[in-house]
Amino acid sequence: MNTNDNNKEIHDDTEIVKNCVFCKIIRNEIPAVKIYEDNETIAFLDISPNTRGHILIIPKSHHENIYGIPVESWCHMNITAQKIAIALKSSLSADGINIAMNNESAAHQLVFHAHIHVIPRYNDFEDKKYTYITGEMEDLAKEIKESI
Amino acid sequence: MNTNDNNKEIHDDTEIVKNCVFCKIIRNEIPAVKIYEDNETIAFLDISPNTRGHILIIPKSHHENIYGIPVESWCHMNITAQKIAIALKSSLSADGINIAMNNESAAHQLVFHAHIHVIPRYNDFEDKKYTYITGEMEDLAKEIKESI
Repeated sequence: MNTNDNNKEIHDDTEIVKNCVFCKIIRNEIPAVKIYEDNETIAFLDISPNTRGHILIIPKSHHENIYGIPVESWCHMNITAQKIAIALKSSLSADGINIAMNNESAAHQLVFHAHIHVIPRYNDFEDKKYTYITGEMEDLAKEIKESI
Repeated sequence: MNTNDNNKEIHDDTEIVKNCVFCKIIRNEIPAVKIYEDNETIAFLDISPNTRGHILIIPKSHHENIYGIPVESWCHMNITAQKIAIALKSSLSADGINIAMNNESAAHQLVFHAHIHVIPRYNDFEDKKYTYITGEMEDLAKEIKESI
């Protein structure tokens, strides 16, 4: 066991990044239906969506939540979120868009890699969850990508 | 009646800005308990809060929602939101923070001047709304300001 606090912190952080489900998506170790990618961010379809087209924006560097993320990365995440919101509006004819970010368990954060939800809303859809049929996510991604 | 479309648009926009409740707060025509102000943004306590310390961030220029707001203003709003989130975390010992933005009625936007909600969460508070007693907002604002 390493008793040097600084080294321990680095070690722990490495373990966190190794096991983080969103870092695994960034490293292509687990699949995701990606919508957009640039040097700093990735956007992909949420596999447990509130509505059809619910997208998550993540930074490529691992940060747990809003408190510690560098300002430049935070801005970049939000620039991507705005691009995605505009694309969802036009490609899916969404009637509205919610932007949301949950920080810590008390605020319902479930994956501890900072992420922004971009959730399209439709006047005729009242349910809280949407379920994709086989192949729908891939078709939807193609449709959204064409509007970015 | 002005039949020139461009002029009409300018006229309509002027009317919107004149009547917009958040523009009135910016012009100090109606009161708000302000937490933070810089050249581009204002942060103030929501008068109908979900929790104690629920804050709204608005741009000083009038934009209805996320779709049309210039990227620089959008980033600036989010930089302010991050400052406020960190200040709420430390000053109020919040257990978590939700960031939220509602765009259009279908997404529950109520005031049509773009705004970001920064909502502290507490493990021991389950209710959906919080009510301030007389003088509490001013004391709370002082407390939060000291942490920015």
